[in-house]
Amino acid sequence: MTNTIKIKSYQKEFAYSYTSGAYATIELLKTAPKLLDCVYVHSQYRDIDGITALCKAKEVPCIRSDKAFSSVNQKENSYVLGVFRKYVNTLWDNEPHVVLVNPSDMGNLGTIIRTITGMNVKNLAVIEPAADIWHPKTIRASMGALFHIRHASFHSFEEYAKAYPKHEIFPFMLEGEYAPEQITPHNLFTLVFGNEATGLDARFRQMEHSVKIPLTDKIDSFNLASAVSIGTYVFARKNGLI
Amino acid sequence: MTNTIKIKSYQKEFAYSYTSGAYATIELLKTAPKLLDCVYVHSQYRDIDGITALCKAKEVPCIRSDKAFSSVNQKENSYVLGVFRKYVNTLWDNEPHVVLVNPSDMGNLGTIIRTITGMNVKNLAVIEPAADIWHPKTIRASMGALFHIRHASFHSFEEYAKAYPKHEIFPFMLEGEYAPEQITPHNLFTLVFGNEATGLDARFRQMEHSVKIPLTDKIDSFNLASAVSIGTYVFARKNGLI
Repeated sequence: MTNTIKIKSYQKEFAYSYTSGAYATIELLKTAPKLLDCVYVHSQYRDIDGITALCKAKEVPCIRSDKAFSSVNQKENSYVLGVFRKYVNTLWDNEPHVVLVNPSDMGNLGTIIRTITGMNVKNLAVIEPAADIWHPKTIRASMGALFHIRHASFHSFEEYAKAYPKHEIFPFMLEGEYAPEQITPHNLFTLVFGNEATGLDARFRQMEHSVKIPLTDKIDSFNLASAVSIGTYVFARKNGLI
Repeated sequence: MTNTIKIKSYQKEFAYSYTSGAYATIELLKTAPKLLDCVYVHSQYRDIDGITALCKAKEVPCIRSDKAFSSVNQKENSYVLGVFRKYVNTLWDNEPHVVLVNPSDMGNLGTIIRTITGMNVKNLAVIEPAADIWHPKTIRASMGALFHIRHASFHSFEEYAKAYPKHEIFPFMLEGEYAPEQITPHNLFTLVFGNEATGLDARFRQMEHSVKIPLTDKIDSFNLASAVSIGTYVFARKNGLI
């Protein structure tokens, strides 16, 4: 019966999304199986028995169907597809945060989620408009790490700052004042990064602790995911998170 | 006359390649105009006068042609296209190096080139097989930084190591022994990173100074470009390169 359900190309308005590929799907099966409606497996997948057993153990319907894959618009070859319901969460107010202001690239967003998860910074705020955090491409780039973090979106940075007044704000910008290593550790930090093309606007420069990652004059700026990697790494190490 | 030349989709075997987009093309015009055969400009480009003047100053033919863009297979909207001859260079033996062993993703490779250029590490060795460093997609991801570094490819890591015997080797791997900050600065360093999926193989573990970027157990590894960003940043800062 379920086999005949037509899978639609993902759209932002959907209440559900897909994990595309075995890696992210298995990550979700292990982390939060209750979110999964079902898992589709293509006949060419190399470990059908393994995924079937895992689905069974987690009580998630596992459906063999090649048709499901043809109707979902995806460039990459993917032989496993999870259908899951989006969920709402809030950030922990006693843990460090990363805030991305208007990130526009799903690949960058997913990579950043993977990176900060690896650095034990597990709370991500995204200021809209922004790349869709639920898009299968973002989830794929995160290697399923999306399911290990808490994330929330806000209409403005002010809205975020009002919700978490105890956090000390560190905006990363080309006009920043301090190198990351110069900052005195503070266990309730918020690292803020701007859009890929435009960075953070001038009002962030007024904040007490603006940060600049040193760079040569041969490039205009670092790639966003690279900047987040460096900044979060230095802060995470200073605070003993990794 | 030149206007009627048909532009072919880039292939690895070509002796020439393309800079796709204004940013990378202008970078090459400023850095090494002699490499450019010509620059094509689409009628919809917003600053035709500016690019025309720059080409004239650099004595590079500037050709207005919309046709050139339709025949080069490219997904991104790009209105400026440079045709340049590939060149051979060698690495400086008295400067630090980054070595990528079998990098497979052109986006990662380009991002890494941009990142290390920003960190003043200007010598990159690539061990084949590898993503094509000359591909327009790599150059675009590098934001034209490719033209600021020296790069060379090798058939094996051993071939590289033999060519640069004075460098101290620091392989980055999940089984590495030291965190990046634990390493005593050495001004002639070589940082080695493995393939996206497989990392570096076990023989690198035998080296004196293997490095591991600390990470939580929630992810299997960092994205390659993230790992290079972190490792190169720590070494560059320790050695006063940035």
